[in-house]
Amino acid sequence: MPISRFYKLYLSPNRKYVKVLKNLLGFVPGNLSLYRLAFRHKSVAQNVKHGVKNSNERLEFLGDAVLGSVVAEVLFKQYPYKDEGFLTEMRSKIVSRVNLNQLGRKLGFEQLIEYDNRILNSGRQGSLLGDAFEALIGAVYLDKGYEFTKNFLINHIIKSHIDIHTLEQTETNFKSKLIEWCQRHGKDISFDLIANQEGESTKLFTIQTSVDGEPLGIGKEFSKKNAEKLSAEKACESLGI
Amino acid sequence: MPISRFYKLYLSPNRKYVKVLKNLLGFVPGNLSLYRLAFRHKSVAQNVKHGVKNSNERLEFLGDAVLGSVVAEVLFKQYPYKDEGFLTEMRSKIVSRVNLNQLGRKLGFEQLIEYDNRILNSGRQGSLLGDAFEALIGAVYLDKGYEFTKNFLINHIIKSHIDIHTLEQTETNFKSKLIEWCQRHGKDISFDLIANQEGESTKLFTIQTSVDGEPLGIGKEFSKKNAEKLSAEKACESLGI
Repeated sequence: MPISRFYKLYLSPNRKYVKVLKNLLGFVPGNLSLYRLAFRHKSVAQNVKHGVKNSNERLEFLGDAVLGSVVAEVLFKQYPYKDEGFLTEMRSKIVSRVNLNQLGRKLGFEQLIEYDNRILNSGRQGSLLGDAFEALIGAVYLDKGYEFTKNFLINHIIKSHIDIHTLEQTETNFKSKLIEWCQRHGKDISFDLIANQEGESTKLFTIQTSVDGEPLGIGKEFSKKNAEKLSAEKACESLGI
Repeated sequence: MPISRFYKLYLSPNRKYVKVLKNLLGFVPGNLSLYRLAFRHKSVAQNVKHGVKNSNERLEFLGDAVLGSVVAEVLFKQYPYKDEGFLTEMRSKIVSRVNLNQLGRKLGFEQLIEYDNRILNSGRQGSLLGDAFEALIGAVYLDKGYEFTKNFLINHIIKSHIDIHTLEQTETNFKSKLIEWCQRHGKDISFDLIANQEGESTKLFTIQTSVDGEPLGIGKEFSKKNAEKLSAEKACESLGI
């Protein structure tokens, strides 16, 4: 064992934190301050300089990009005969907030993240874990480089925690998601055809999705079904569900 | 000069193509078939297997991700005191189709891309160059790895062809963009307040943007101005402008 590693794990004043991270990540971290930052939510951040706060949001931006790139390569190689539409959809499923939140929960992030319960309202707590996961990837990247991060993600995260084949089967159906949400919250929902354009051989449908009479999304497609789907997706987006 | 490099540049039957690529990229490519694929538009693609065509679309998916990751790191390091909102916006500007198309034009991609003029309608030709640029990044990545691609992008592309400081100043104003477009095409435009929700201390505005009476986008924000901006952005999106 190299001396620096021995020092970090057994002698340094941070040895407890180093061990927690080693258990979590499977490797001994280099620059500890990056990892501390990755687990610091903006609700406990302080102003550092020029209005920038020492929260994990910048690392999240970087980690999101690195994660997107690694997942793109994994899918590109795993599915040599699938087109880019399939690859894009699979990636969205893997890096969705729902999936990354679950991952953060499985990995035990709740004990590691610093956040202020009073500031955080329950709605926003939802993405706390997924955001920290992305920030952690940003920290690993800055600490160890791309190849290391890629191997870490593939061997430590994707292989053990992400079931790509199950994700392949699940379809994100925004229309049924929205209908269920409205039923649960006692709200009326309607999908109205608000325009209808005829081309030479095609017909373009414009569907507006309204919840309790309020228009929330418009979808324009060459089939009524797809226009509904698209407008439901936009409505889900504006409701944040 | 290593023998393989000498062979590629001066003896191989592909030496002409190798030289063209070397002039374009600044390095001698390894796996030529990747680069040929990057410059093959779907309009000239043939079915390979299981319905997958040998066009540049899969490489574009991969290259888009790698490019996003490299640009994220460049911005993260160049702007240590800017928040993630700024970084996200700057990245969108750098990797926008408009910007990548310009880049492809500057680099002379028009001579390299294989495409079928008859199939391609003028509207879609717009993103031909930018798409090929992303596909090229995917090819470089598979051929040479992440660090090489990153250095290539930074030293050969970003430093010479992208003026980050000018991009920092330009604001994408979707509302004026849409108004100009409507004037040019003789179309009526309206921004209508269609809902108005009052919270405890805030007011939520819902604005619908219509062109020639047809609703194209809805924006919901805490200020009327921002709601208009958002709905104009969505309208631009659905008009493809």
